[in-house]
Amino acid sequence: MESPKRVKPYTRPTGERRGLLLVYTGDGKGKSTAAFGLALRAHGRGLKVRIFQFIKHQGARFGEHRAFSALGIPVEGLGDGFTWKSLDLDHSAALAREGWERARVALLSGEWDLVVLDEATYPVRYGWIPLEEFLEVLRVRPEHVHVVVTGRDAPEELLHLADTVTEMRKVKHAFDQGIPAQAGMEH
Amino acid sequence: MESPKRVKPYTRPTGERRGLLLVYTGDGKGKSTAAFGLALRAHGRGLKVRIFQFIKHQGARFGEHRAFSALGIPVEGLGDGFTWKSLDLDHSAALAREGWERARVALLSGEWDLVVLDEATYPVRYGWIPLEEFLEVLRVRPEHVHVVVTGRDAPEELLHLADTVTEMRKVKHAFDQGIPAQAGMEH
Repeated sequence: MESPKRVKPYTRPTGERRGLLLVYTGDGKGKSTAAFGLALRAHGRGLKVRIFQFIKHQGARFGEHRAFSALGIPVEGLGDGFTWKSLDLDHSAALAREGWERARVALLSGEWDLVVLDEATYPVRYGWIPLEEFLEVLRVRPEHVHVVVTGRDAPEELLHLADTVTEMRKVKHAFDQGIPAQAGMEH
Repeated sequence: MESPKRVKPYTRPTGERRGLLLVYTGDGKGKSTAAFGLALRAHGRGLKVRIFQFIKHQGARFGEHRAFSALGIPVEGLGDGFTWKSLDLDHSAALAREGWERARVALLSGEWDLVVLDEATYPVRYGWIPLEEFLEVLRVRPEHVHVVVTGRDAPEELLHLADTVTEMRKVKHAFDQGIPAQAGMEH
């Protein structure tokens, strides 16, 4: 007699250990820095961390990059420093799609315990990364993989899928009071 | 003839380089992690960073501590892990006052470019650190010193004094959906 089809073995109750999807959105400061702080914490706990930055360009060397490289955490700038002042949107869009391809592979590989998709809401909002594809990758990723997505205007569907959502709300910003960005604090 | 009393030498216009006071408050996740991310960025820029944690106890070894110690950033747990369940409030209060004394010295010394006062709003709210004294130290600190204060319910007067205030607003939290805290992500 053939043994019955293997049933799914006992697994710990849902939630004991599972990858979380966290979203930091809103117009306030602290979205990316919170993601970096989390990366630091996770790294300190022995998790394998990888960071993709969808706006920062490849060669960007901000303070956090230097510190992450000292810790051996890979940070990849995928963008071209795109802002609303960009002159070549087609180029920005192509870069975002290439970058997303790399992030997608990393997410699905299961090799990384925490993947940070910094400022990923923008290419999604601009339509450079199709929202449905973005969500689908998050849905089907290996279940131990934690993901942090940052950026303003996170789409409703992403908030719905997320486990934890924080809105960073700007109450007050130094820049609005004429204080220019300070090295080491804002870049 | 004696030379005239030295006048203050030319300094760059206010705002070119000055220490910022940042506050991360609100009931959402990401307040401390944003402060840690900022510490990381500042460290990467060569700033001297020191972190005081008003609730975490001395021996706490969370993920961020391991990473900070790898980077050589001093982190001091000042509290006794106080929560609303603490049995000995007098002890917690005394620890907070001692800790504040150390933080005060560090802030005023000018030796540190960035001082993080993590979860400092709580001992201020509980009256363990007098609000007026707390604000006064922030007001008279050397002008290059950046300060980040985190914690819920930041007093109005602190928000008023701050250069940048972000409210981390909880939109959704995994814990509310029955998902327990995940090592490496939340501690």
